[in-house]
Amino acid sequence: MSTDLLLQNIRKHISLTGVEGDKIISKLKKITLKKKQFLLHEGQIAHEVAFVISGCLRSFSVDENGFEHILQFAPAEWWITDMYSFISEKEAHLSIDALMDTEIMTLSRKNQLQLFDEIPGLERYFRILTENSLVASRSRLIDNLSLTAKQRYQKFCTTYPSLINTLPQKLIAAYIGVTPEFLSKLRKL
Amino acid sequence: MSTDLLLQNIRKHISLTGVEGDKIISKLKKITLKKKQFLLHEGQIAHEVAFVISGCLRSFSVDENGFEHILQFAPAEWWITDMYSFISEKEAHLSIDALMDTEIMTLSRKNQLQLFDEIPGLERYFRILTENSLVASRSRLIDNLSLTAKQRYQKFCTTYPSLINTLPQKLIAAYIGVTPEFLSKLRKL
Repeated sequence: MSTDLLLQNIRKHISLTGVEGDKIISKLKKITLKKKQFLLHEGQIAHEVAFVISGCLRSFSVDENGFEHILQFAPAEWWITDMYSFISEKEAHLSIDALMDTEIMTLSRKNQLQLFDEIPGLERYFRILTENSLVASRSRLIDNLSLTAKQRYQKFCTTYPSLINTLPQKLIAAYIGVTPEFLSKLRKL
Repeated sequence: MSTDLLLQNIRKHISLTGVEGDKIISKLKKITLKKKQFLLHEGQIAHEVAFVISGCLRSFSVDENGFEHILQFAPAEWWITDMYSFISEKEAHLSIDALMDTEIMTLSRKNQLQLFDEIPGLERYFRILTENSLVASRSRLIDNLSLTAKQRYQKFCTTYPSLINTLPQKLIAAYIGVTPEFLSKLRKL
């Protein structure tokens, strides 16, 4: 069942009783998104964080010149939201859409904070996940400042092995910051 | 007293009894760094996270071509470490040094995790701080991909108001990713 995948993921980091697991599941909402459907539009409030059961989401922003910049991919077992909007309840800077038919479970910030009071282990789980996300985000920042496109592509392959052959080339190119033509050359090397 | 600044900072986010505050303080180590002195060298393990009482630290990496890339400044009341090394106990990718004479309190990962078990509120404090750091890091990532140098300089001024007139221009230039000459032109506008 789809909820099993989430509970297994949580139990990789903390121990959880059956009652606690049931309580968490009772606060989640299951949603199915069609390919290209949006979970969040820039300017909306991100009230929820989403856990991907199957498929793949991405978060991205569009700059003044209309160029898309991809911040994150979320294949199965990844969490995704506009963190700024989620924790501040202000307007999201990012949009989130589905790159293929995708099944997710969402948890609202209100329910998350309430669960943190009731199940301290869950706050630990999200503390650990947030630490890992911070490491990944800072590492990508340094990569963008200091690595060559080839090295950034290699990092992408390490971070998202399941996506190398499933995503359209133009999306991977937008993530590492090169043109699709240049990525095609890189892959031939 | 220097410990008051830290306890005040923690109490902005969570409530803490006197006994809990004393227990936290007992796990901290006070260190004074001279200007240009290193707290951490790339390749070492970051066993500690540092809270700045006065002065300013920075974390940075040096790329294959010898260029320095500044990831973070930490003026008073900021925490800083190589998060990757701190949570994984692997070799740090970053170095951390003092930009002026600086007084810090350090907390080891071992003591931090032990305190999380004893004082759940402290885990909440660090969960909140890590969420905020993640928002800042992702925002900078998007900025580097999509903003002009002028807009990145404006963001720097918002993020680090206390540093605009205290840091050498070349450090601010290295942070926003322009030459010192170009930054000088930006400031005249």
